[in-house]
Amino acid sequence: MDRETAASWDAGDPLGEFRNRFVCHDDVLYLDGNSLGRLPRATVRQLTRVVTEEWGRGLVRSWVDWIDWGARTGDLLGTRILGARPGEVVLSDSTSVNLYKLASAVLAATPGTIIYDAADFPTNRYLVQGIAEQYGVSCRPMSDVAELESIMDDSVALIVLSLVDFRTGRLLDMNAVNAMARRAGARVLWDLSHAAGLIPVDLAAAGAELAVGCTYKYLNGGPGAPGFLYVRGDLQDRFRPPIQGWYAQRNQFDMGPLFDPVAGIGRYLVGTPPILSLAAVEPGVELCIEAGVEEIRRKSVRLCRLITDLADDWFAGGPLTVASPRDAACRGGHVSLRSREAWRLSQALAGAGVVVDFRPPDCLRLAPSPLYTRFTEVWDAMSCLKDVVDRHTYENYPATPARVT
Amino acid sequence: MDRETAASWDAGDPLGEFRNRFVCHDDVLYLDGNSLGRLPRATVRQLTRVVTEEWGRGLVRSWVDWIDWGARTGDLLGTRILGARPGEVVLSDSTSVNLYKLASAVLAATPGTIIYDAADFPTNRYLVQGIAEQYGVSCRPMSDVAELESIMDDSVALIVLSLVDFRTGRLLDMNAVNAMARRAGARVLWDLSHAAGLIPVDLAAAGAELAVGCTYKYLNGGPGAPGFLYVRGDLQDRFRPPIQGWYAQRNQFDMGPLFDPVAGIGRYLVGTPPILSLAAVEPGVELCIEAGVEEIRRKSVRLCRLITDLADDWFAGGPLTVASPRDAACRGGHVSLRSREAWRLSQALAGAGVVVDFRPPDCLRLAPSPLYTRFTEVWDAMSCLKDVVDRHTYENYPATPARVT
Repeated sequence: MDRETAASWDAGDPLGEFRNRFVCHDDVLYLDGNSLGRLPRATVRQLTRVVTEEWGRGLVRSWVDWIDWGARTGDLLGTRILGARPGEVVLSDSTSVNLYKLASAVLAATPGTIIYDAADFPTNRYLVQGIAEQYGVSCRPMSDVAELESIMDDSVALIVLSLVDFRTGRLLDMNAVNAMARRAGARVLWDLSHAAGLIPVDLAAAGAELAVGCTYKYLNGGPGAPGFLYVRGDLQDRFRPPIQGWYAQRNQFDMGPLFDPVAGIGRYLVGTPPILSLAAVEPGVELCIEAGVEEIRRKSVRLCRLITDLADDWFAGGPLTVASPRDAACRGGHVSLRSREAWRLSQALAGAGVVVDFRPPDCLRLAPSPLYTRFTEVWDAMSCLKDVVDRHTYENYPATPARVT
Repeated sequence: MDRETAASWDAGDPLGEFRNRFVCHDDVLYLDGNSLGRLPRATVRQLTRVVTEEWGRGLVRSWVDWIDWGARTGDLLGTRILGARPGEVVLSDSTSVNLYKLASAVLAATPGTIIYDAADFPTNRYLVQGIAEQYGVSCRPMSDVAELESIMDDSVALIVLSLVDFRTGRLLDMNAVNAMARRAGARVLWDLSHAAGLIPVDLAAAGAELAVGCTYKYLNGGPGAPGFLYVRGDLQDRFRPPIQGWYAQRNQFDMGPLFDPVAGIGRYLVGTPPILSLAAVEPGVELCIEAGVEEIRRKSVRLCRLITDLADDWFAGGPLTVASPRDAACRGGHVSLRSREAWRLSQALAGAGVVVDFRPPDCLRLAPSPLYTRFTEVWDAMSCLKDVVDRHTYENYPATPARVT
């Protein structure tokens, strides 16, 4: 395997031209698109229009267009990318707040134990712990998703799971988990943050009932862009979300005396949405639709394979081991390399212009987002990592992250 | 009173030059700055920088600057505009979600009755109704804030009040209400949405404990800009907000197994903030600080007085009466005119290029935001209203708003 091979793959890449649809600077090799996706050029135009024309000139009158933007982009995302039906996905609040809304709504309707993944992204774990306390139910972390079926019992009301693990990239079988939960009489709330726009997801076919996710990773919606939530149509009116804001009110502008939630997905909204951040989501979603998630996934598998192949070639027996599943069918869009020196390696790479993620305690996370990452970039980034390892330049960096708080 | 007098006031207006700091088009007379404030020119520059440089070039590395932006702008707003101490105000989520967080936190610590204003902005009422249900306490609407003291009893844990009424503009005496609540052993949660950046507020001197508010009205932070929340320093660690997101975690990036809230205002944060919308708040806050809230309030009082004087002159005994308090000391920054035909009048004004608000059932809301509204604009808008009334052109419009849902 040499760089020329990678270059030939770039030349034949059916998604190659999509890189030009993003703002790209050549001063950095960016393998962190699963933390923050790149800026689509169309988003710059969209924001300019929204800021200067819609806010600057249209002022409050623009709310006619803005008010259901979360539903419109939600439908685009839901029906074209996630396999949901119209009116089942909406953009709203943050992923964390959305998870709180859906998990609380389930618990309020059916109190019971919550099971969560001890390795899940922190905010999901903390939220579930708080909800369990609030509703006076127990919550149980599991150390390995493989044990899920064996620990299920009648007391379980809700299982919170990430489809793709933020650290290792492990991809679950949504169908199988949903079927198992259904047999046990429990609901599953999926976090699709590391899957949306990357993994072909068919919520309807997989029998999914509830999901949340973020839009700033593979969907390229911008820093802290609003999250999305999905509630299967037939379930929407069975729940009453705990945060009863005016955006969930039937005939919102009648401003009636008592809360009377609208039917449908709208009842999961809360307050006035952050329009500038919301406006930035649409172009990213449209790019994914245009490229096609199947095609994105195909390239993602090849990019990740290049990382694992090079890691095996260059670091076998060394300070870095592949922590992600080997089987592409069980892996999302990033590869984690495990090392005691992961923090220092990430810093040394940053110093050399290679942006990857460190995830405690020991993971170096490399995410080649397919819409804009070249095979040669992966080769160059891995080559840089090899250099940092071989020359021990990482030893010039502090051994642990500085404490912010 | 004639237009020349209004023009002479514009000529002598110490805030006159601030209009040039906003994007203004002359095709509209805008008296709706308490629904959505105008776009500051500095915000266009700020957003261009954040989008193209920080997101487009800096990518995930920009989080170093972004991560505490809500706290930084919160401090600016808190210490320079709201009379809070450093570390007592933070920008986060929407006003609705913030109200939920604070009210729930109080109820979790001290269950008891919630009192709210039956005339309060809908989202506040609906939220309180939901929280009461969730915590199994009662909530009582009061029909007149004047009756507050008389309906207090030992069961009351929390009073939710807007400092300025969204419909009538009635301004409460924060000091007096806080003192009364303190005697009764209850807490007050203030909504400052229609006051922030307009009314001199001194949270510390007024003995305020809890507050929320929005930044897109007189603070000109942009459509749906993040809300703010205030918790007095000594109370911050006594509460544990119910939505336990990772932004509230001590040493957030350690990603430890159990939720362990950071000390201070940070524990009231939840998830990743919408950076584009957050970025737009700072320039608006800075403009208010530069102009000075005392000066803004002085001009506001004169602008509102012009509205009530003209309404008295032109509509005495007619179809419009002043619904706002006459005493400027008891009134916020807008004047409501009551009419059975308020909806149609608002539509006829819109048709004539005058943007005001309709608030059901019968209020026409005129808000001359002082940083960019001229006295002659108020004169012209009122003159247009007189014309619409005299010529009955409003009768060409539908009698009631179209139902959206």
